[in-house]
Amino acid sequence: MKKSLGAKTIVYPAPVFIIGSYDTERRPNMMNAAWGGICSSEPPSIAVSIRPERYTYANITRRQAFTVNIPSVALVEAADYVGICSGRDGDKFAAAGLTAVSSDIVDAPYVAEFPLVLECALRHEFELGVHTQFVGEILDVKANEEILDGRGMIDVAKLQPFIFSPGDSLYYRVGECIGRAFSIGRKE
Amino acid sequence: MKKSLGAKTIVYPAPVFIIGSYDTERRPNMMNAAWGGICSSEPPSIAVSIRPERYTYANITRRQAFTVNIPSVALVEAADYVGICSGRDGDKFAAAGLTAVSSDIVDAPYVAEFPLVLECALRHEFELGVHTQFVGEILDVKANEEILDGRGMIDVAKLQPFIFSPGDSLYYRVGECIGRAFSIGRKE
Repeated sequence: MKKSLGAKTIVYPAPVFIIGSYDTERRPNMMNAAWGGICSSEPPSIAVSIRPERYTYANITRRQAFTVNIPSVALVEAADYVGICSGRDGDKFAAAGLTAVSSDIVDAPYVAEFPLVLECALRHEFELGVHTQFVGEILDVKANEEILDGRGMIDVAKLQPFIFSPGDSLYYRVGECIGRAFSIGRKE
Repeated sequence: MKKSLGAKTIVYPAPVFIIGSYDTERRPNMMNAAWGGICSSEPPSIAVSIRPERYTYANITRRQAFTVNIPSVALVEAADYVGICSGRDGDKFAAAGLTAVSSDIVDAPYVAEFPLVLECALRHEFELGVHTQFVGEILDVKANEEILDGRGMIDVAKLQPFIFSPGDSLYYRVGECIGRAFSIGRKE
């Protein structure tokens, strides 16, 4: 028997995406977004929802580009800081102790210290109430070498990603592997 | 220094959403979707991307409704099974040992055994390449009582959600709490 909790934005897991963008002066900015996810396999695309009042919003519409950076557990404080203040009030990269790197394929910066980044070209904007959903085509994924395994693939144990929990506004680490997809449920 | 991995749909975390829908005969069906996430706070909305060839696709467009069910670690095999076979070939609920419950607010079934469900009315369809993105307004969230704490809120340790890892196609459990959002990064 299920109990009603009301019409709420509660889901597990929600991501912690750090969205990188340039402003009109080409100053790098970043913000913290939990509303988003992959939205098409081909062209490889990701959706991120941002409120029009956010500084990042105009950056993305002007530059037609953004990056999605994935922080690791060791940098949870810096990732959280980015979601507390606004780029209108100063240089978030300097304040967070993070380094902006200019993407060579889209007009947006990414975060050197965060181990994984998706470089995205804006393809669609959908107004969905208080948030606008930006759909970006993923033109490249780049990873810090220390999170790759011997085959050059991402090692989740080295990446150490974490999730956002909308119900209690807490961050949780990703724990151990519990099985292989499209395999563990196979019936003989 | 980052290394290029190419234009791929790799992100952390990706969810394991079990999408519930009714077919033309009102037979309950479910499928496993990793491409999606919350997309607006108001109206509370969730996006889920589904290929047109999936049985669920026509169910949602006809019924204008779907549910998003969140499985727990204990039911990872059933959640995975749902993503391997098609509802065209038989009753997935019976085969997976799961129970379909008819939502009282949208024309779709949910899964009794999965501890959390979002009941959604279809609001938008966006064609994004090989996937169509369905945006549903969340009309209610329902939870099994055993995952609620003393205040009636979701206890993540009891919910035991898990994530999908697109890079290696593995499932990983959600581990311990590492901090409070909009707080741990606050500078004094």
